Order: sequence, then C-alpha cells, then structure tokens
Amino acid sequence: MTAGHTLVREQGVTAPEGFRAAGIAAGIKASGKPDLALVFNEGPDYAAAGVFTSNQVKAAPVQWSRQVLTSGRLRAVILNSGGANACTGPGGFGDTHATAEAVAAALSAWGTETGAIEVAVCSTGLIGDRLPMDKLLSGVTEVVQAMAGGLAGGEDAARAIMTTDTVPKQVALHHKDSWTLGGMAKGAGMMAPSLATMLVVLTTDAKVDAAALEGALRRAAALTFDRLDVDGSCSTNDTVLLLSSGASEFTPSRDELDAAVLAVCDDLCAQLQADAEGVTKRVAITVTGAPDDSDALVAARIVARDSLVKTALFGSDPNWGRVLAAIGMVPFTIEPDRITVSFNGSPVFSAGMPMPGAREVDLSAADIEVTVELDIGVGQATVRTTDLSHAYVEENSAYSS
Amino acid sequence: MTAGHTLVREQGVTAPEGFRAAGIAAGIKASGKPDLALVFNEGPDYAAAGVFTSNQVKAAPVQWSRQVLTSGRLRAVILNSGGANACTGPGGFGDTHATAEAVAAALSAWGTETGAIEVAVCSTGLIGDRLPMDKLLSGVTEVVQAMAGGLAGGEDAARAIMTTDTVPKQVALHHKDSWTLGGMAKGAGMMAPSLATMLVVLTTDAKVDAAALEGALRRAAALTFDRLDVDGSCSTNDTVLLLSSGASEFTPSRDELDAAVLAVCDDLCAQLQADAEGVTKRVAITVTGAPDDSDALVAARIVARDSLVKTALFGSDPNWGRVLAAIGMVPFTIEPDRITVSFNGSPVFSAGMPMPGAREVDLSAADIEVTVELDIGVGQATVRTTDLSHAYVEENSAYSS
Repeated sequence: MTAGHTLVREQGVTAPEGFRAAGIAAGIKASGKPDLALVFNEGPDYAAAGVFTSNQVKAAPVQWSRQVLTSGRLRAVILNSGGANACTGPGGFGDTHATAEAVAAALSAWGTETGAIEVAVCSTGLIGDRLPMDKLLSGVTEVVQAMAGGLAGGEDAARAIMTTDTVPKQVALHHKDSWTLGGMAKGAGMMAPSLATMLVVLTTDAKVDAAALEGALRRAAALTFDRLDVDGSCSTNDTVLLLSSGASEFTPSRDELDAAVLAVCDDLCAQLQADAEGVTKRVAITVTGAPDDSDALVAARIVARDSLVKTALFGSDPNWGRVLAAIGMVPFTIEPDRITVSFNGSPVFSAGMPMPGAREVDLSAADIEVTVELDIGVGQATVRTTDLSHAYVEENSAYSS
Repeated sequence: MTAGHTLVREQGVTAPEGFRAAGIAAGIKASGKPDLALVFNEGPDYAAAGVFTSNQVKAAPVQWSRQVLTSGRLRAVILNSGGANACTGPGGFGDTHATAEAVAAALSAWGTETGAIEVAVCSTGLIGDRLPMDKLLSGVTEVVQAMAGGLAGGEDAARAIMTTDTVPKQVALHHKDSWTLGGMAKGAGMMAPSLATMLVVLTTDAKVDAAALEGALRRAAALTFDRLDVDGSCSTNDTVLLLSSGASEFTPSRDELDAAVLAVCDDLCAQLQADAEGVTKRVAITVTGAPDDSDALVAARIVARDSLVKTALFGSDPNWGRVLAAIGMVPFTIEPDRITVSFNGSPVFSAGMPMPGAREVDLSAADIEVTVELDIGVGQATVRTTDLSHAYVEENSAYSS
C-alpha cells in the first residue's frame, strides 16, 4: 500500500506488543479439532472498535459484542468455532453472557481485574443449535491458562477459529516507526460471506483512541471485506474487531493508521478469497465509468453474484455475453453501446459489438480480471469474488453447515 | 384456477382456431436439430400484445418486436434457436429486420398480404454471435411452406425453439364457451431466467382487442413468469407474446380472459420450472405476513436466490438457519423473534428458537415448500425456484451457452 512498513504472514494478533493469545480444543467440535481462542490485551491502553454484520438476524454474540463495544474498550476477545449461537433465543444470549462472565472471572483470578463488559464474544458454525456450555466453560478456564503460559499463541488462536477454512489466516504489519498491527481471520466474506461467518481480530500496539480505531476500521472494512463477495449470502455472525494496547507508546498519524489498517485488512481479504469454499478461480470484477463510486460498487456486485458468470469462469469460458446480461440489470441507466468489457485486459466487447478474438481469450489461469467500462461517468469499484464450482455445491449440500 | 375450462398439454399454439404453426431445422444449430419456428394468425382479427425482458441490454429481436407491437397487431411470429442475436450491433438489428421482411414476403407470396411490421421476431441462444443469415433466410421460405402445408404444427414449433430444454412445453385451455387459449414456451424463467432466454407465444381464438390482451398478459406474467427465479440471472431476449384470431367469434368477459391467460401462463411456468437446468428439486418459497405483497415478493426472491439455501435443498438438508440468514437481508425492517419458518408445512423455527425435530424434517421428495411467516403485516407472495445442483454447474460451465 504505502512505503514505511512491511507485511509478513506470521504471528498475527500477537505480533504487536501487549497482546497474548491462545487456541485450544475444548470439545465443542465433534471432530476434536481446536475450537476456542482467546485474544488478551495486556495494556496499558484498552481502546477498541468493531464492525458487525448488516444482517437483521444477528447472533447472540453479535448482540453482546456490539453492546460492550459502546464503551470503546476491550480487555479480551473469546472466539469459538463449532457453533454460531444464532437463532437460539434468550437462552443463547444467556450462554454468550455466561461465557463473557467466565472469561472475566478467569482473567481476574489470574490477577487482571476484568469485567464481563470488557470481553467481546465471537461464535461461528451451524446456525440454530445451543452451544455445549459445560465444554465451553471448562474450555474458558483452560484457554486462559494456556494464554497465561506466556507463549505468543497467535497462530494457535487463528487455527481455533477455523471452520471450513483449510489454512489459518494471519498477517502482521511492522511499521518503520516501531509500531505493529497484526490480525487473524476466518471465513470467506463480510457483507456477503460464504458459509457461516467471517471473524477478524486485529491488534495494534500503537497509542490511539477508540475513535481513531473506529474510523480506520470502518474505512478499511468498506474497501476490503465489504467488497469480497463469494456467494451473495450474508452471515448472522460477521464481526471485525480492532484492539490497541498502546504498548509501543507511539501515536501514528491518522493517515498512517488508516493505511496500516487498510493494508492488513486487504491482505486478510486476499487470504479469505484464496481459501473460499470450492474456489478454483480468484476473480476481480472492476466497474469503471459509472455515475459514481457507489453505482460502480452496485454494478460490480451484480456481476460478482451472477451464477451464469461464475459458472462460465469455473469453465475458463470467456462468455462475455453473460457479463453484459448481468450488467443490464443494474438499477441505474446505462448506455449498452458505450460499454467495453475486458477479460484479463483484452477487450472482448466494445461499441455494441464483439471484438475480434473475443471467444479465444485465455482464462485458464487461477486469477481472472473482468473489467466493465460503462463510459457514462467517473465512478469505479472492484469486488473480489470466486467461481461457482462443483466443489462449492458439494461443500454446501453434502452436510449441514 | 376457475371452473369452466379444461387444460391439456397438447397442441399448444395451434389449439385455438385461426392459427397455424411449423417448426423446421434450418441449419442454424450445429447439431442439426430443429431451430426455426413460425406461428401464423389467419384471422379474422390480428390483435396482439407482448411483454419483454427488463434487462437494459436488449437483443435486436426484442428491440424490433417491441417496436412493431406498438401497433397492437401481429400476423406472425418467427422464432429461432441457435443464436440470441444480442450484443451484435447495427448489423444484428439489420438481420432481425431482414428476417421480418423475408417472412412478410413469403407470406405475401403465399397469398396473405403481410408487412414486415406485422411480424414479431424472437431469438434464443448464445449472446454475441451474428446469425447465419443465408441459412435463416432459406429457412424462412421453408418454414412458411411447412406451415402452408396445412398441418397444425404446434408441437413442431414448440420443439424448434428448444435450447437446453429437454422437453417441448405446450398447453391448451378449452373454455366451456367454445373458445380456446393455447401456448408454447422454452427456457427457464422470465425476470430471472436461467441460461439464455424464456420465449413464450400464446394464441387465442377469443374475440378480444389488443388492450384486453395486454392487460391480461401483464397481470398473468407478473404472477407467474416474473415469479419463477432459477438463478437470478436475466436474459437479454425474454419475450412473451399473446395473439388473438377472433375465429371463435366469442368475446369472454375480462375476468374470464384474465383467468384463462393466468391458468395457461401458470401451467407453462410449472413446465419451465420442472425442466430448469440441473433441477433436482422444485421449490416454492412463500413469504407471508410481510408489510405488503411487494415486500413479500422481494423477500421470497432473496431466499429463492440464496446459493446456500439452494445447495442445502439440493442436499435435502432442512438447514433452516440459512433461510433465516437470507431473510435477514431484506431491505425492510423485520422482527426476527416473530418469524416462523416451515419446511413442507412443518414449523422448524418459531419465537426466536428452533422447534423440536427441526433437523429431522424429510426433504427427500422432489417438491419442497419453504414458508416464512414474518408476522408484521398481511403481504404475501410465492416465488418458484429450483435447487443448485452439480448438474447446474456442469451445464453452465462445460460449454459456451
């Protein structure tokens, strides 16, 4: 993004000073794989911000975490895979509350006086089942002990939040001014994730207040996670949190903070896209020349969600007619004869007609760029998506998830 | 729908008096299968109405047919499969015009003085290629001869418009008052068809004017084809035409005409759904208790287009959480705790919580009903859709279409 920092895909949330993390197998998942993660902020600051799913059906942990974040302050985040705790009624909300209380109690017993309202909760997995609270509460004790053991468990935490993910996703940005921003993620989307949920926790040792964190996070999420659209579906549990410890004692400028948060979100987004369910193609849909940027985003999203476009790309078929048919459904007025469609930089349709060689463009590689120039304004936007493959259908039909 | 008529799935457009039809192989399709159809109105009346795709990218034949229908009068409809003639520029529009001229000339030569502006043109197939006009124009002469041969070629016409359809689709409604309404269809949707295009031609010998036809057709299409949503994509070529010959000399009441057109459209719609690409499940999504009917339609469409819902149904998985996640994205305010979701009549989620046995509902049969009661108003709507199967992915990725 900008000079002055380096990105490495290791350590994640424990790369910045002042953070500890752990991940364990608490027995929530029937498979016995890791399913409970803790991220702990040792301070001296505890500023925090979050963005959440726009779905009106919000899981209990989302309702809880939105509420506690109104204080702009977090000591810890507890995350479980193996169950979304969504659509579980007042009992499910009680389970989330009890989890936060248990984390607060365990941290207090360890010597860090913590209240439940300083603990965010994230859950991911199948919608509609209550969590096995006996296992979860025993797990809380265990995960606090693992965290207290002193190892920088960023990768363990990143593994414990995986569901259909095949690899843990983490990144750390080291700034030349000796502050660091780290993050971990799971899932495959934000406004429109694939199966279940996108969960992201970002940490920094920069000395910044909650308002600055909030501004940087909203801006970055709008340009990254909000523009990753795997299948147009939207989870009940999506959560992105950003915590600062202030341990570096350095306060970056707003521009520096914004750029760092954007760079880390962008990298995590690319990791999510590359590991999306059933993906065989990483596709970027760019619309230019729209009336404004928001129109361009709407248009790019329509193309990115079109099943006929996505199946054609799975087949490496430069079927540009399907792109035009999708674009024709945008909710603002276009002039079809002014449109130029390109695949991987090769124009295939322009001035109302196909270009020579339009059916011969090579789309056999894993990365595909689709560009639609509308030529009616200056608005532009890019949406990342994937193809629609047999593996996607298989993963989403063969078992409840 | 109402008493007083019977529906039979034969004859189609040639069931009413005053109509002839034919279908031939003109060599437009590389496979050599039938690809050119003609529907001819012998009169004495020539009233006609049409509805067309809402896509802003409109194929040349749609542009032509909308124009000629402003007169409310049609002598003939020529339809080709094997090429959509969409996104083909001024040359493609010229091809459509030349086709109408050729039909008019051939009909005039046969003894029925006809102008090109009395001929509607419909095309279906791959977007972006020019039609082989030498073959098409020879075909026009041949199809007029076949029609003139005197056989009631409704089924031949229905076969000649097929693309990925596996069976021809036709129906005839015989009214007790001795008038008849017939129709043929191809494709798999209207506002949101699957591959390529939905084309429908309806004919009647009732004595009714173009305004009555238009009213009946718009009303019926809005309740049937507009609510068939296979994959959310929308064609550049969708066309539904209704022609009357007046040959029965009987003028039904508006209610009778409306009911008959609705019944025929509804039946053709069911045939399109049953033969949709890759279908293994015929799914009806009903939303009730919405603020109004249009809100209910929007909500039903969102569920019907959700890839995670559709893959779950392919797997016969009563994954009601995905239905709730989809409903949570509606653009009006809902109250999640008031929602009841049912599969095949069995409530699976109510009052914010799962119902006992919710994961055990049997969805193994080919017909699945999903009902979402929002409990905030009296609006309701049903959208027909299909599952998202391996066969859908295969048909839409393995070759250009």
